Amino acid sequence: MAEQTISIKLDGEAKEVDAHQTGVELFSQDKDIIAVRLNGEPRDLYTPLHDGDDVESIRLESPDGVAIMRHSATHVMAQAVQEIRPDAKLGIGPVIENGFYYDFDVDTPFTPDDLKQIEQHMRRIVKQSQSFRRRVVTEAEAREEERDQPYKLELIGKKEAEIDDEAATEVSTGELSMYDNIDRDGKVVWTDLCKGPHLPNTRYIKAFAIERSAAAYWLGDEHNPTMQRLYGTAWPNKDELKAYRTRMEEAAKRDHRKLGQEMDLFSFPDEIGPGLPVFHPKGAAIINAMEDYSREMHRKAHYSFVQTPHITKAALYQTSGHLSWYKDSMFPPMHLDETKDEQGNTTRPGVDYYMKPMNCPMHNLIFQSRQRSYRELPLRLFEFGMVYRYEKSGEVHGLTRVRALTQDDSHIYCTRGQMKDELKSILNFILKVLKDFGLNDFYLELSTKDPKKFVGSDEIWQEATSTLEEVGKESGLELVSDPGGAAFYGPKISVQARDAIGRTWQISTIQLDFNEPKLFGLEYVAADGSHQQPVMIHRALFGSIERFFAILLEHYAGAFPVWLAPVQVTGIPVADEFTPYLKSFVEDLEDHLVRCEIDYSDDRFGKKIRNASKSKVPFTLIVGGDDVAKQAVSFRFRDGSQLNGVPQDQAKAWILDIIARRAQVNSADDFAALTK
Amino acid sequence: MAEQTISIKLDGEAKEVDAHQTGVELFSQDKDIIAVRLNGEPRDLYTPLHDGDDVESIRLESPDGVAIMRHSATHVMAQAVQEIRPDAKLGIGPVIENGFYYDFDVDTPFTPDDLKQIEQHMRRIVKQSQSFRRRVVTEAEAREEERDQPYKLELIGKKEAEIDDEAATEVSTGELSMYDNIDRDGKVVWTDLCKGPHLPNTRYIKAFAIERSAAAYWLGDEHNPTMQRLYGTAWPNKDELKAYRTRMEEAAKRDHRKLGQEMDLFSFPDEIGPGLPVFHPKGAAIINAMEDYSREMHRKAHYSFVQTPHITKAALYQTSGHLSWYKDSMFPPMHLDETKDEQGNTTRPGVDYYMKPMNCPMHNLIFQSRQRSYRELPLRLFEFGMVYRYEKSGEVHGLTRVRALTQDDSHIYCTRGQMKDELKSILNFILKVLKDFGLNDFYLELSTKDPKKFVGSDEIWQEATSTLEEVGKESGLELVSDPGGAAFYGPKISVQARDAIGRTWQISTIQLDFNEPKLFGLEYVAADGSHQQPVMIHRALFGSIERFFAILLEHYAGAFPVWLAPVQVTGIPVADEFTPYLKSFVEDLEDHLVRCEIDYSDDRFGKKIRNASKSKVPFTLIVGGDDVAKQAVSFRFRDGSQLNGVPQDQAKAWILDIIARRAQVNSADDFAALTK
Repeated sequence: MAEQTISIKLDGEAKEVDAHQTGVELFSQDKDIIAVRLNGEPRDLYTPLHDGDDVESIRLESPDGVAIMRHSATHVMAQAVQEIRPDAKLGIGPVIENGFYYDFDVDTPFTPDDLKQIEQHMRRIVKQSQSFRRRVVTEAEAREEERDQPYKLELIGKKEAEIDDEAATEVSTGELSMYDNIDRDGKVVWTDLCKGPHLPNTRYIKAFAIERSAAAYWLGDEHNPTMQRLYGTAWPNKDELKAYRTRMEEAAKRDHRKLGQEMDLFSFPDEIGPGLPVFHPKGAAIINAMEDYSREMHRKAHYSFVQTPHITKAALYQTSGHLSWYKDSMFPPMHLDETKDEQGNTTRPGVDYYMKPMNCPMHNLIFQSRQRSYRELPLRLFEFGMVYRYEKSGEVHGLTRVRALTQDDSHIYCTRGQMKDELKSILNFILKVLKDFGLNDFYLELSTKDPKKFVGSDEIWQEATSTLEEVGKESGLELVSDPGGAAFYGPKISVQARDAIGRTWQISTIQLDFNEPKLFGLEYVAADGSHQQPVMIHRALFGSIERFFAILLEHYAGAFPVWLAPVQVTGIPVADEFTPYLKSFVEDLEDHLVRCEIDYSDDRFGKKIRNASKSKVPFTLIVGGDDVAKQAVSFRFRDGSQLNGVPQDQAKAWILDIIARRAQVNSADDFAALTK
Repeated sequence: MAEQTISIKLDGEAKEVDAHQTGVELFSQDKDIIAVRLNGEPRDLYTPLHDGDDVESIRLESPDGVAIMRHSATHVMAQAVQEIRPDAKLGIGPVIENGFYYDFDVDTPFTPDDLKQIEQHMRRIVKQSQSFRRRVVTEAEAREEERDQPYKLELIGKKEAEIDDEAATEVSTGELSMYDNIDRDGKVVWTDLCKGPHLPNTRYIKAFAIERSAAAYWLGDEHNPTMQRLYGTAWPNKDELKAYRTRMEEAAKRDHRKLGQEMDLFSFPDEIGPGLPVFHPKGAAIINAMEDYSREMHRKAHYSFVQTPHITKAALYQTSGHLSWYKDSMFPPMHLDETKDEQGNTTRPGVDYYMKPMNCPMHNLIFQSRQRSYRELPLRLFEFGMVYRYEKSGEVHGLTRVRALTQDDSHIYCTRGQMKDELKSILNFILKVLKDFGLNDFYLELSTKDPKKFVGSDEIWQEATSTLEEVGKESGLELVSDPGGAAFYGPKISVQARDAIGRTWQISTIQLDFNEPKLFGLEYVAADGSHQQPVMIHRALFGSIERFFAILLEHYAGAFPVWLAPVQVTGIPVADEFTPYLKSFVEDLEDHLVRCEIDYSDDRFGKKIRNASKSKVPFTLIVGGDDVAKQAVSFRFRDGSQLNGVPQDQAKAWILDIIARRAQVNSADDFAALTK
């Protein structure tokens, strides 16, 4: 038989190769290549190739490679569990950020010792260098093979639309496949229903760990049975695993829930309920500083402040459509104003009232409370509007996922001609504000039309999207596109910020809306006397004040710039005799609204210094005999450095100036640079 | 038979009088005396006297006299109605502020023509000088006489505790009486079940009018039938009636609901529901100015700001007792976090959540979130806390009675030793703040212990009450006592302010509380290491921001002092060519956060001036050729006076200074006085 060749594109270059060759042979020189992207789809390395195929190599350390490796790791974990607990029923085992998990239905939850044992067993499997091999099966064959696995059987029966993202790594409606693990003797030692792709063999799983176990509902639905979920992490090499652990430790140190308690900033009392934060004086001081700043900026930027109720009749959210498509996220209604006679018969039917999930419908009512002229546009309504989201009690998380959150929410009504300038100025406004809060590293995400789901004309989408794109590009920031990611009512640009330890957070959003102005029948009288529908822009800058507060707290690990610090000055007298002198200086600062404390405790001087240092106060002011003699104070900074004998007037002026400049001060050098 | 005499006290003087004499004879020289206060109780003038009685005359123009006259007027009104509509069934007819009403069950509501006819008929009765005569009857007799009057029969059966204040003027359980109207021929022409007392005759009703009719539930209970209520007013003479009408007209002009709409300050959209105000930009600008001011003052006064959720689990208000004694005023609960299996069986019971009716329990949680030392006291927690009151939808009224209100609420935890200084400083703080808002005429009301209903020791009540009294006296203000008016948990002092047209409003309250600290088990570690219970002071200064806003709006009739004015400067160019010059000046002011508008409309100059004048803006800045030539602007004030050609820098400095000084400017003279 004659040797056949096929024409393929290999990592971008046209090649003629032996028809029987696969990635295994083509990349045999480079053991870091663990899979291929075949005509755009990730596939196993040994997948047969055909004439015209576009083949790209996937390296272990690439994002695709890491995801495949983690997916194989989750198989190894499931295999280890079933070899230790043969009765374990398998759920799903997807890849997640930084790792993977697998859900098991087991008689008893896993203990920490179980986790160690499973991890050791995984290491044995990895060392055995078991191969992953794919087999396509019919639905009947799959059902037969998985007859003892009720959850897998449930997945086999599902249609594509019923499969959520995480389960989608397991099963597809296009083609069912099983993955066998084969040992060096060629024997199948374990099998899982899976879409793949996988590593060539288990040996590539070089750096991994089981992290923790947790209970989880099957497929995340609280009506379903509870499974035991094992979380693991895996990295291309040990250095990356170590770096990840360092990052996690750093993140844990900065965890806003931990800092919030240590610094006495906020709490979630059981008596009130989950997701409902209570801000203590020091936390509220930070929130107030954020809000004061925001108010000033919004005033200068010609926003019109408004104030709207927290509850409303259902009618409003029927008009806006929220009760149709957002009801699950809303709190249940309160039924008001029903009257009954003495026999208990309803004499006047009541009305359902809801806590507001969004502010926009109320702002629309203000827009339409009287006739509007083009001369009033752009009309920028702004409010610190608290909105309510009925998060599941188990899914709330510190201040980043709460049940009541305060949006720094604006709705801007403008003409189509004003849209571009308005978007530009909003983006500039946002970037200026975020920089003032010490965030300097951004990228933008542009979410564009989902062709299957949108309202409004193609023309206006086109115009709005290209305007957003243009505005994004002019900002000079990286612009990542999110095709089809827009809500049905208009395209969106979102600002993502990187924090001090490299994590990215979505913060601000700017969203165009062609839908609500129509639903509410909003209009203005144009210069020619005609009635026109305004364009509406939804815009939140902090997003939610609570969440932005949490991000700042983690970004600064509690060591806030002076203007945001809950306590800006802690006064410590070297001895009691200096207290009156210190007090008089501190009271003068307080009259200028500097947030001060004096440590009056019975602690010794050294302990007071250590306490101030632990509290992350930017300025510790120490007063001893020399200071009094010179009518001065001594500064101690967060890093322990000092600046002694600063004359009172100079000290006061510097403190006020640094607060006004919104600067950060961690050391005597920082201070010197700001006051020179 | 020998002439008998009795010893009585007559208007404070001991007298011997003929035993058969009554007030009629004793006061026969003074026709303005229309009744007596007999041993402290108001009674008819002809009431028989006994040895030892204390008799005080009641003059028509005294508060007691006016009340009696109004009560007689309501009888005359009921008589007129029954003479015109014999089938009308009578409800109750009490005296209210400025007048009286009577409720009727009639087949058809009264028309404006009916009101005129009834009023004319009343004038005939008054002219007939019918006498009011009292007859004591047994319950059986009363029932027989009132057999056709079902509402009166219902009253006759009621126990004292069941009779509310307004019905109490009609019937008492001590003794039932009927009042007959007797014409000049001695014939009984009309009778009503009534406690009395009444005027000697109808002729004393010198100045009265029927004002309006309205539907009302019998005894105010929505389960009861609807009655037609006629409201009337009556005064000792025509001048007072006229003065009252002038006051009413002035009040109507100042009605905050009317001004709120005219000035585009706020609205109550149907889509949202009654009692839930929406603040438009100009209204929110005032609210923000009030809140900014309040924040600054509270910071300087060493209050610690906190922020607490709007909803909470029921548990919190069970602990505080609100769910026992305040539930009727609370919104119905939302039932959260219940989970069900697929069969609909509850797998986890839910929890009731309530919108908060008061902030104090949440502040208590902050107090007890960690151990507190005596060194931290007084701890003054402060919040603009929105609270929710389930007012009946028909009883809400503009901004003065709403369903959601923002309290400038503080709870102060202090030692018993600190209580007095703290109360003094709170009262001074309140008076300073109210004066800054332009209220200067106050009195205080001291509500003391209800001996039947209180918690805490006599000793601490005594101390607290005398402290409040002392603090009140030291303020130099009139101190009105309200014996037994305190809540069960502690005495209260409230600040009442008189507005520009002489009406008084209760504004601020300072309340001591010996109950909640106990219910919540609050404690601090004292200097000696022992655990002590703090005293708690509840204190609201504006009371509710919404209500205080309404009071200010009515007090100033919309012409606010500059710092509170929603628009502080309106710019009007004499011709379009001056607009750029004006705009540049105005933008500079806006950068200094002055609230400005430029009238860009197509209106003629004169119309623009009239519009600015109508809008009550304090500074209208006019720019013409002379101004541009001199780099100046011209001021026009609310009263139409002007100050021309003020150099720009001077104008800007003056405007900023007047705002900072929180001054009022209505005229060029006001302005001159402030800038000289």
